[in-house]
Amino acid sequence: MTQLASTMQQYQVRVNEQLEQYISYQGPVSATLNEAMAYGALLGGKRIRPFLVYAVGEMLGSKLKTLDPIASAIECVHAYSLIHDDLPAMDDDALRRGNATCHIKYDDATAILAGDALQTLAFDILSREITDLTTSSQLKMLNILAKASGEKGMCAGQMLDLAAENTAISLVDLETIHNSKTGALIIAAVQMGALSKTNIDPTEFSLLTKFATAIGLAFQVQDDILDVIGDTQTLGKPQGSDQCLQKSTYPALLGLEQAQQKAQDLYQEAINALAQLPYETQLLESFSQYIINRDK
Amino acid sequence: MTQLASTMQQYQVRVNEQLEQYISYQGPVSATLNEAMAYGALLGGKRIRPFLVYAVGEMLGSKLKTLDPIASAIECVHAYSLIHDDLPAMDDDALRRGNATCHIKYDDATAILAGDALQTLAFDILSREITDLTTSSQLKMLNILAKASGEKGMCAGQMLDLAAENTAISLVDLETIHNSKTGALIIAAVQMGALSKTNIDPTEFSLLTKFATAIGLAFQVQDDILDVIGDTQTLGKPQGSDQCLQKSTYPALLGLEQAQQKAQDLYQEAINALAQLPYETQLLESFSQYIINRDK
Repeated sequence: MTQLASTMQQYQVRVNEQLEQYISYQGPVSATLNEAMAYGALLGGKRIRPFLVYAVGEMLGSKLKTLDPIASAIECVHAYSLIHDDLPAMDDDALRRGNATCHIKYDDATAILAGDALQTLAFDILSREITDLTTSSQLKMLNILAKASGEKGMCAGQMLDLAAENTAISLVDLETIHNSKTGALIIAAVQMGALSKTNIDPTEFSLLTKFATAIGLAFQVQDDILDVIGDTQTLGKPQGSDQCLQKSTYPALLGLEQAQQKAQDLYQEAINALAQLPYETQLLESFSQYIINRDK
Repeated sequence: MTQLASTMQQYQVRVNEQLEQYISYQGPVSATLNEAMAYGALLGGKRIRPFLVYAVGEMLGSKLKTLDPIASAIECVHAYSLIHDDLPAMDDDALRRGNATCHIKYDDATAILAGDALQTLAFDILSREITDLTTSSQLKMLNILAKASGEKGMCAGQMLDLAAENTAISLVDLETIHNSKTGALIIAAVQMGALSKTNIDPTEFSLLTKFATAIGLAFQVQDDILDVIGDTQTLGKPQGSDQCLQKSTYPALLGLEQAQQKAQDLYQEAINALAQLPYETQLLESFSQYIINRDK
């Protein structure tokens, strides 16, 4: 196993344990709501956002204990967004990571509420006392997370994405969708990890943001590519589903080869940003490579 | 106009102006999402939670400018919950305050996302810099708001409320539903108002919490009573709608007279708590009276 693979696994296990604790039912209110939240949040997944929080934070010398709530909070936001995106009124998906989606396993009302409560949990976790973190850094993180997930970030992205179904859109519009729907939260993960270091240097913060912006978009370009060249078994969702919905994608707009080149260029941008940082960036470099080479 | 009525109106106007500013579209992402959020948040309403933030805060000597973001944040949470509760998968309501509900005016997906983004906006607003507030008080408020609205508070209450339709439940269960669905956020409003005073005395905080707990439940008891004795025109929603859904209510479980007595007892509890505070509590007393005497 490569260093990256073993670190990714270690962080995955860690954040899953954290999430289990945060979501563990402590009564006495609604056990079903709690179950649905746990189901939605613990259904596997690559845990890319927590990885970024941990990897960036550890690179800067922060303790895992400090990073735990940050990683958990951002994953709660991601998990809530998946639950809501899968709803019949939205993308209407019955499968997620090879399992029944939350509203199929429970029902629509429960899935809406489980998503709502997972979003709330993110802000709950991040507003508790956190080891080695100043209250001012915590507030900054909370605000970054809120901005990235709200009406100018993730929610807007999903809204635009729904509107773009069966519609031809431009490359610029496609990039706006991805930057808000996926990119914003990936940037937030890196920035929150960076803010775990008290008084992080503004230039370093800005380089890390550049790195995050590039891999955030690269991630989405590769996702689009996989929808063309991947296979359903590996993906855990039907291959070609974007094409079915006649979604505009990078391969559709640029052709497969140009889309692959785009991913490669973004990778290079990420690497260039990392190269200017006075830290051991090997793990983040490998991760950037993984983002554009992954098969699921 | 009584002192209470004019103050309520003044706070309503104030929080509406604040909300308009917070939600005002600043591009460049999704104008429709923004419109739906504004529609859901600015459709009138009594603004009881903002009233409590302002009234408690001003009583303790805090500036309106400090209280604005607190009042706005809690109203965003309330507004989001109404949008989601009205969805077909939930209470399936077409009318709210005499107007088309958000999902009728737009569509289900937009209403889900507008609700999601309004919840996020609450935490966004409350994690920005706030005049005269320590970062530590802000974090406490954020955590109170999150706890009150999440899986142990408002979301749980809605979940239990849905499960209780067409089911006979006990008085204890009914109280659990109301305490979590409505009470938690009313208590949060009072507590957040209280925390606007740096180093609020713990005994005073606890008395204010007692006051809030009593009026929170009284509010719901009166709501149930109005569903029996109110009229559709004044209520802005169909009178008797609880009875139609065969919901367990205080009048249904206790009889109308006992339910009215219960409201009276809770009012007395609220007044007793206020009487022990070393502040000018006249406005909160009048408000308590209003809660159990209102006709809509």
